[in-house]
Amino acid sequence: MKVFFNGDYLEKDQVSVSPDDRGFVFADGVYEVMRWYGDHFLGFAAHQKRLLRSLAEVRIEWPAAYKLEVITSELIRLNQLQKQDALFYLQVTRGAAKRNHVFPLPSIIPTVYATTTAFIPNSAAVEAGIAVISLPDERWLRCDIKSIALLPNILAKQKASEAGAQEAFFIRNGIFTEGSHSNVFFVMNGVVYTHPESGAILSGITRNIAISLCRELSIPVVEEGFIASSLDMADEIFISNTSGEIIPVVSMDGQPVSGGKPGIVTKRLQETFQRYALIANA
Amino acid sequence: MKVFFNGDYLEKDQVSVSPDDRGFVFADGVYEVMRWYGDHFLGFAAHQKRLLRSLAEVRIEWPAAYKLEVITSELIRLNQLQKQDALFYLQVTRGAAKRNHVFPLPSIIPTVYATTTAFIPNSAAVEAGIAVISLPDERWLRCDIKSIALLPNILAKQKASEAGAQEAFFIRNGIFTEGSHSNVFFVMNGVVYTHPESGAILSGITRNIAISLCRELSIPVVEEGFIASSLDMADEIFISNTSGEIIPVVSMDGQPVSGGKPGIVTKRLQETFQRYALIANA
Repeated sequence: MKVFFNGDYLEKDQVSVSPDDRGFVFADGVYEVMRWYGDHFLGFAAHQKRLLRSLAEVRIEWPAAYKLEVITSELIRLNQLQKQDALFYLQVTRGAAKRNHVFPLPSIIPTVYATTTAFIPNSAAVEAGIAVISLPDERWLRCDIKSIALLPNILAKQKASEAGAQEAFFIRNGIFTEGSHSNVFFVMNGVVYTHPESGAILSGITRNIAISLCRELSIPVVEEGFIASSLDMADEIFISNTSGEIIPVVSMDGQPVSGGKPGIVTKRLQETFQRYALIANA
Repeated sequence: MKVFFNGDYLEKDQVSVSPDDRGFVFADGVYEVMRWYGDHFLGFAAHQKRLLRSLAEVRIEWPAAYKLEVITSELIRLNQLQKQDALFYLQVTRGAAKRNHVFPLPSIIPTVYATTTAFIPNSAAVEAGIAVISLPDERWLRCDIKSIALLPNILAKQKASEAGAQEAFFIRNGIFTEGSHSNVFFVMNGVVYTHPESGAILSGITRNIAISLCRELSIPVVEEGFIASSLDMADEIFISNTSGEIIPVVSMDGQPVSGGKPGIVTKRLQETFQRYALIANA
């Protein structure tokens, strides 16, 4: 498998990250994931914009010599993924320097690492839905930065997995914020609720497309966090993320949601999203 | 410089961290720092205990074949630090595996990386004190785990540095919790206040020794977070950490503390600590 590492296209086992890399010692970096639909990426411009925003928030400068369009197309070509579903992963760290909390001076060259991997959608989850658990949101208050400091997220996802669930929903101050690697949506009386953009959630590209598609379908959307204690009143629940698109939730903390099967609004949005993803090319 | 990496003692530039290391992609790891006083470590047993606790909290198993006593003494010997001050740094990550939030199954071998570096105490800070700034505590609620997910800490320390200060104090719910890489203490009417152990702070080894020494000196200590709005009533402020021991704070957010010079209680505790560190060997 060919990967991109600091300007070169290498076999992955040839990549050597320095133990001084601030990504390794401080989680001092950000990342992006994009889905490739065999001939195009969905939301390329939005992902690129979010990457630059994350970098700006942590004040890492994207090396001007690297063009995201070139890295993506070269990796797709070198790994012969032109006609397959694939995931593009990109990570940028501040670079390698003697361990010291403050940013290195003079500034150093960021570490840029990217991969493309053939991807098989989880059709069982897409069609039958997933089980989720709820957990207190103990994460930091800058979840809008897509940082690699993901320890709280992996611990939550692991808890979900051990409970036989596929995702963990976080609750902060009595409100559902997002999942460990997804945005979360609740349908109540025909209205879709999702947490507003803030430091409490990542501004998901799939989330934002889902909101737009709801509006096109005349499904009312309210960007308001769903109150955890109102869970019984949710008719449907679903999540969104880059790899899974729209995935129904059919149980929460062991209790069935929408009768234990994907809800009608969820299905309608999911199908609309699937069609949109295949033709959208921006 | 010789370092320890997964069982071997190598030149640092021979160490190659995999880009799949979960420390690099997820901040899925923990660390420790110990200070070497030329012939002994201070608080070796306490550091080892905290390391094992951090590992247990994130459920990484310390490889039984590695003995911390052996790693530390070999690194001191190989780097000829027997008669110098030095810092020992150890990082343990869950290891390298295909990127997936859940823990790898079957479980993988953790990555263990350790260094020793000659260390020159910052005598200006120790003697004249430092300036600090205060910032909202936006970090996660498991700061008791000494994890490598330090992005919030480095961003805070960088802000301090750019404000001409040497440390940032975090405030959560109107209470000082800790610094970006230190515990924080306030002296008011002869009583020392420091935040109690909880998920809001790291249980600092130096913090805990400082509390014991205060008690030996009959200085009253209250483990209670200092209220940020009472700052004007603080007669003295100091910080503690492994590398700096006890360091006076002489200004906060541009305002002088204890008349802009180290306070009397701080100095007394600092001198006691310095004597203790030279002879303590546990």
